[in-house]
Amino acid sequence: MDADKTAMQPAVQPFGAWMRAVQTTMEQALSSFLPAAADAPQELHQAMRYAVLDGGKRVRPLLAFAAGELFAAGPQQLQRAAAAVEMIHAYSLVHDDMPCMDDDALRRGKPTVHIKFGQASALLAGDALQAQAFLVLTDGAGDAACKLAMVRLLAQASGSLGMCGGQAIDLASVGLNLSRQQLEQMHRLKTGALLRAAVLLGALSGKLLTVAEEQALDRFAAAVGLAFQVVDDILDATADSATLGKTAGKDAADNKPTYVSILGLEPSMVLAEQLRQDAHAALLPFGHNAQRLRELADLIVRRKA
Amino acid sequence: MDADKTAMQPAVQPFGAWMRAVQTTMEQALSSFLPAAADAPQELHQAMRYAVLDGGKRVRPLLAFAAGELFAAGPQQLQRAAAAVEMIHAYSLVHDDMPCMDDDALRRGKPTVHIKFGQASALLAGDALQAQAFLVLTDGAGDAACKLAMVRLLAQASGSLGMCGGQAIDLASVGLNLSRQQLEQMHRLKTGALLRAAVLLGALSGKLLTVAEEQALDRFAAAVGLAFQVVDDILDATADSATLGKTAGKDAADNKPTYVSILGLEPSMVLAEQLRQDAHAALLPFGHNAQRLRELADLIVRRKA
Repeated sequence: MDADKTAMQPAVQPFGAWMRAVQTTMEQALSSFLPAAADAPQELHQAMRYAVLDGGKRVRPLLAFAAGELFAAGPQQLQRAAAAVEMIHAYSLVHDDMPCMDDDALRRGKPTVHIKFGQASALLAGDALQAQAFLVLTDGAGDAACKLAMVRLLAQASGSLGMCGGQAIDLASVGLNLSRQQLEQMHRLKTGALLRAAVLLGALSGKLLTVAEEQALDRFAAAVGLAFQVVDDILDATADSATLGKTAGKDAADNKPTYVSILGLEPSMVLAEQLRQDAHAALLPFGHNAQRLRELADLIVRRKA
Repeated sequence: MDADKTAMQPAVQPFGAWMRAVQTTMEQALSSFLPAAADAPQELHQAMRYAVLDGGKRVRPLLAFAAGELFAAGPQQLQRAAAAVEMIHAYSLVHDDMPCMDDDALRRGKPTVHIKFGQASALLAGDALQAQAFLVLTDGAGDAACKLAMVRLLAQASGSLGMCGGQAIDLASVGLNLSRQQLEQMHRLKTGALLRAAVLLGALSGKLLTVAEEQALDRFAAAVGLAFQVVDDILDATADSATLGKTAGKDAADNKPTYVSILGLEPSMVLAEQLRQDAHAALLPFGHNAQRLRELADLIVRRKA
């Protein structure tokens, strides 16, 4: 590399500006990767778009983009990887909110999909979003082996040994006294698996990973995934519905075990901070390139909603 | 090729024996491609296995295996392709039977998944089966480009412009007077898209397809897919629940448009026979290798359940 160029690195964008840029990019990308609202069947496509667009903090796409910076991933591949993970996340929320599951009427400050479109459309929109996620991964430029690895990772993270499995354990645990270990296993599957997929798919958008790279990212994702849930539990116990954009205090009302109910509020906050530091430690091998991932770990632990 | 070997072709297995062999092979393959019932989360895995195993005629796997014979596809690849399509089919039945959709209590002569395991488990089992279908396609031997083409085809066939889209149109059409053209479009998506995927994934298990090969198989799949639905409508109007293994006369009771309600019974039977002949005609370019596909077209039109 030219020595002058090394010396002339561009000024690093502040985190907030970077985050807003990714969110804006992803809103457009998600919109373009979803069927148009005017295309038949229109109500299904409108429900799919309603479920995905104009909502959420886009934590998973942010993780994918941050991980993509480790290996200079191209923007097209990153957008597809991030969109696929976000579509899986969105479909899981649609199904999770349905009356036979959590029966929630409010999500991101708006009526949930089954309230707005009816249960049958919500069921189908979720199903179609899962298929769309895998479809998005197969399109565009990029190496077939790399794309196939992404499909495989996303399918594992979404299925019965990942997100769906975690939701099944969650359902079965209502009213039970879970140990801290059982609670952790549930969350590792329910939310952790997909957060890990976001990190690994982002990294895979740059290149196939070495074992050491994958292990370091796994450690980071495990710490951030768990921290995410601990903070969710803290916020559910302390924030109000308007701030959260969803019904607060629902876990206690539903008699669901949480970190706050098992450990108490103060120890849960200590744990979240410890996990933030674990996440930073896991990133040491990546040096400067991991700045965005470090900043995201900070955001996930210190968020207020 | 050695002239002696050409003259000494093995005796062709009778169709019934071939069909039973594929069904037996696929029962074992599906079982091995699903998570074990003893693995946690057990109830979810039991529901997934209940939804897939020990039931159905395996029409889609039969189509995949028959199409695989066109290009001497290997048994391992064929089993994965066929299992993936069958898992998508099985998940769609689980969700379709739920109270917010068709609200059916009986399927293949057994209680439906939500009756046996509850609605939440049925929802999750269907979701996890869809993920498992894509996972199965990424494993095993075979070319990455070919596998990625299969993932793409299956995702298209399952999503909002395929099966899910057809179900959405079906839901929206209850009580409406559909034209024959609208009914055909609905079925082309609802059942035709996945039958087409079965044929094409089976063929792709042998080799990447030329445009001419894909077009011929598309014509075959379109005719067989439509015939399948016309015969379904005829059977719903004429057979009893015990023979069908599901509730007969349900379409009329639900005020759903069918070929029988639009065309009448006799013209529907004439149409089914015409489509069977169209399917045969589409296979002419493949000659002798298409024998199983021809026999399957005959079976689909002439079945009694």
